[in-house]
Amino acid sequence: MSENTSHQVLLVARPEGGVREGCFRLEAAPRPEPGPGQLLVRVIYLSLDPAMRGWISEAPNYREALPLGSVMIGFTVGEVAASRHPDYAAGDFVLGRQGWCEWALSDGGDIHRKLDPAEAPISTALHVLGHTGLTAYLGLTEVGRPAAGETVMVSTAAGAVGSMVGQIARLKGCRAVGLTGSDEKAALCRRDFGYDAAINYKTAPDLGGAIAEACPEGIDVYFDNVGGPVSDAVLERINVGARIVVCGTIGIPDGEAGEPPPPGPRPNRQLLIKRARMEGFLVLDHLARLDRLPAELLAWVGAGKLAFREDRVAGLENAASALLRLLSGQNRGKMMVQVGADPTLSRH
Amino acid sequence: MSENTSHQVLLVARPEGGVREGCFRLEAAPRPEPGPGQLLVRVIYLSLDPAMRGWISEAPNYREALPLGSVMIGFTVGEVAASRHPDYAAGDFVLGRQGWCEWALSDGGDIHRKLDPAEAPISTALHVLGHTGLTAYLGLTEVGRPAAGETVMVSTAAGAVGSMVGQIARLKGCRAVGLTGSDEKAALCRRDFGYDAAINYKTAPDLGGAIAEACPEGIDVYFDNVGGPVSDAVLERINVGARIVVCGTIGIPDGEAGEPPPPGPRPNRQLLIKRARMEGFLVLDHLARLDRLPAELLAWVGAGKLAFREDRVAGLENAASALLRLLSGQNRGKMMVQVGADPTLSRH
Repeated sequence: MSENTSHQVLLVARPEGGVREGCFRLEAAPRPEPGPGQLLVRVIYLSLDPAMRGWISEAPNYREALPLGSVMIGFTVGEVAASRHPDYAAGDFVLGRQGWCEWALSDGGDIHRKLDPAEAPISTALHVLGHTGLTAYLGLTEVGRPAAGETVMVSTAAGAVGSMVGQIARLKGCRAVGLTGSDEKAALCRRDFGYDAAINYKTAPDLGGAIAEACPEGIDVYFDNVGGPVSDAVLERINVGARIVVCGTIGIPDGEAGEPPPPGPRPNRQLLIKRARMEGFLVLDHLARLDRLPAELLAWVGAGKLAFREDRVAGLENAASALLRLLSGQNRGKMMVQVGADPTLSRH
Repeated sequence: MSENTSHQVLLVARPEGGVREGCFRLEAAPRPEPGPGQLLVRVIYLSLDPAMRGWISEAPNYREALPLGSVMIGFTVGEVAASRHPDYAAGDFVLGRQGWCEWALSDGGDIHRKLDPAEAPISTALHVLGHTGLTAYLGLTEVGRPAAGETVMVSTAAGAVGSMVGQIARLKGCRAVGLTGSDEKAALCRRDFGYDAAINYKTAPDLGGAIAEACPEGIDVYFDNVGGPVSDAVLERINVGARIVVCGTIGIPDGEAGEPPPPGPRPNRQLLIKRARMEGFLVLDHLARLDRLPAELLAWVGAGKLAFREDRVAGLENAASALLRLLSGQNRGKMMVQVGADPTLSRH
């Protein structure tokens, strides 16, 4: 790799019929130089997220699909390599949205905050102290609003968001029950993430019965990262006044090209009978809070009360295959790509 | 009709495959006499409501199905004929839940308030100053929470609840758009109930296009009394931050005996993309407010700002057929049965 080269990954095809490696192409480009007011970021870690499926699809979404030919977008942790920006100096570590590249120019608008490696490993800015932590914290506390003693059900319970939701529910005095896609992840939920119970929805012979058994007092909050048949089974067992946080829909398959996703039971009748609330939550509405994380969240992480797992792959050239692994539920912890060397690691 | 007879209507069959006249049976019973602490109510008006479909069905609901052989339940306006209860005297008019009968004993627990015929026609206690008015007012203002300038869409727009919602939306400074099932009712919406626009969903060749045209700035609040395909079309056009008040599901057909209702598009993705909220509202949770109606609602009715229409049929023996007319959308205004003489009518 030449000293003046920056590799980057472009989006080159839409994920019709599902995301595949061919949607992306690695290319080499000249390493850019910062102009006045700009800084050059060397990307160290790249976050991979289920929402990326939506970002690259032309199906209706909360923003326009990323144009073909663009560098793929994503949250990153990086080091400032050179700066002509008054707020940043070479050697600063930053949480930003530099995307799938080794080197990126920035005017500061896509940088969320500086990171202090002495406070926490810089990679945590991509999960417990980043957008997934914020998703779990705000989605659960502000939309789900659990009260002590209530039962909180979580889908993708071992994932980057789900594992945080389960732990925060427990810290709030709730019973936490997880839905996940393998026995290994169910064990992880119980052992590492403190869930009171965890269900492998793929193998449960009677999912509804398993949910009822794990939630003897019904479900008060459902933090839903999937939608689809698994969530239909949860909805049948909600209590009066339940809150359903719609945070992700990875369990609702893409429709075939131009076709809508497969239908399912309409929730209207159950929402009416149970006077329940189903509400969408999107952390992108709250990105300003990445620079002023909730004090309670910071305190929990500082006190070591929130366990986390990272699933790292090395090399930008493996980002696409790692994304596929995440989307198929085969990751073990927060999926991220180590794009470049992390000079802070020797300090810990 | 003997002086000592009280006719009443019993629920005698479940509405499998749909409500039919055979679900009910009229019978004569001896007129009861009040014991200590009881009062005898002569029923004058009986309210018919879409929710009755659910009350008599064994499908899951917010309360147990009415047992077969029971007198059918419902809101009523009546006159106290005799009283051994300290709070009521013969000649009082009362709003209560005496059900489908001519004479009913009460211990006061199923009486909501006394009515002053000088203030408003006593029949209004079954609509604008009763449970449907309260449904519209609380559902719209507390769940839908419209802001001036927003667009409020209403289904069953000409019905007892819908017609109130549309008018309250206008009083709150919103654009009100109605969905209804005939050109006649659409005209009624525009002329009598002040809707800015009304759509006959049964004849609109392109319902989505008609909704888009009537709501050029999208939909901020959807007060939904129907669910089903009509509501699916509304959901596609909601704005970011929209609120969907799930107040009724009459547009979702009963499943065949033991079968679930037909599936439809899951709303999860749209709720997520739009950070929208879908929430069930049940006026039965708020019945205590029938005795202390919201001041704003009272003021509007007092000032003649809320138009209403009544669709009355005479005679308890016609209650079942009138209910069928309501459930098929053929009523014109608040559906009610005049069970007995209204002595207040000559006073107006």
